[in-house]
Amino acid sequence: MPDVAIESRSRPAFLFDLDGTLIDSVYQHVVAWREALAGVDINLSVWKIHRRIGMSGGLFVTALARELSTNLDPEALEALPRLHEEAFIRHYESVQPLPGARELLATLTEHGVPWAIATSGVERYARLACEMLELAPDTPFITRDQVRYAKPDPDLFLTAAERIGVDIRDSIVVGDSVWDLLAARRARALGIGVLSGGYGREELIYSGAFRVYEDPQDLLAHLDEVGVRRPL
Amino acid sequence: MPDVAIESRSRPAFLFDLDGTLIDSVYQHVVAWREALAGVDINLSVWKIHRRIGMSGGLFVTALARELSTNLDPEALEALPRLHEEAFIRHYESVQPLPGARELLATLTEHGVPWAIATSGVERYARLACEMLELAPDTPFITRDQVRYAKPDPDLFLTAAERIGVDIRDSIVVGDSVWDLLAARRARALGIGVLSGGYGREELIYSGAFRVYEDPQDLLAHLDEVGVRRPL
Repeated sequence: MPDVAIESRSRPAFLFDLDGTLIDSVYQHVVAWREALAGVDINLSVWKIHRRIGMSGGLFVTALARELSTNLDPEALEALPRLHEEAFIRHYESVQPLPGARELLATLTEHGVPWAIATSGVERYARLACEMLELAPDTPFITRDQVRYAKPDPDLFLTAAERIGVDIRDSIVVGDSVWDLLAARRARALGIGVLSGGYGREELIYSGAFRVYEDPQDLLAHLDEVGVRRPL
Repeated sequence: MPDVAIESRSRPAFLFDLDGTLIDSVYQHVVAWREALAGVDINLSVWKIHRRIGMSGGLFVTALARELSTNLDPEALEALPRLHEEAFIRHYESVQPLPGARELLATLTEHGVPWAIATSGVERYARLACEMLELAPDTPFITRDQVRYAKPDPDLFLTAAERIGVDIRDSIVVGDSVWDLLAARRARALGIGVLSGGYGREELIYSGAFRVYEDPQDLLAHLDEVGVRRPL
């Protein structure tokens, strides 16, 4: 039945990053990492922290060691995730959904377009975000602890596609960072960028985004451009 | 004496932006604006605040009204600068000089290259930054209150060039934001970008930067590329 296979491949599914893509939390993460690093006497320029938000913690530490041209104290490294989490919680009350995030997800559901969320963050925090976005508890949500490697490895998006029963090659990954877009390419999905995490438009295009929108609201207004049809 | 004129035009002077260019303060300004806006019940996505740091306050307010599609309450607008300043002071202790900033300025002085600092910020804050960078009290420092219009108008850089007695057309403007680079073009200076304010490399190139470096340290290591010769 070749017609059926072609039909199925022509309907996209969406796999969303969370921080900077659906919720406005990137800068709070940046500040929290700045405070965590200062807590172990590491002074890294803030823009270099910004450009590493959303990548796996292990790769972040590797990048840190290169930037500081030094081996890092194992005890300090061990303390970092806890220090970051404590600092992030202090800033969490200023975190908000990005404009159009709830409406975008609701519209996809309404149109019968499958979607899932895949984040390098941990489960506890994903639950908080789920509440903020007013999502059903059974929303497909893939977190760091469910895969071997976080972004820019493809595991999170591959697992998300599998979870909602779609072919990764029919999937559109929406993310704010170059790590999302690299993971999308490695997973063989199409990548769409959003500016709401603070990357520049061209950085996202050069990382493989085939379109870049301002934020979820802007993507929602242009769903036709990425092939989403209203249900018949 | 045509030889003398040619000689003088071949020696560059440097006009530096401050926030994000010499000191690592952009993200603290972003967070402070976020808090100030929340204080008057305005909710603007944080990346949109980030992309407006360093522009004149009047233009910032115009942009704000467009983004929010509403006229802003005059009392709220009047309170904003004070709320921002109070919030920024709370975050000021985490502000540091950018890597290589002091060394870059000291090297230029050593090589007899004229330089000045020109910032959209106010004088009181510039004095704090002056201390942080360990600069002499007579360092040429042009602030908001000394000109009619801040960036992206060319006034700050034009005044800075005049103050140190150089032709603006012989001057190299170093800045982290598109507002610096637009002001540089309007002033007829050459623009150099630095990534340390969190803009992407291509955003700065597309805004007219003829070179982009990571931060002051990276520019210092490549001074030959922008035509700075060691003194004979």
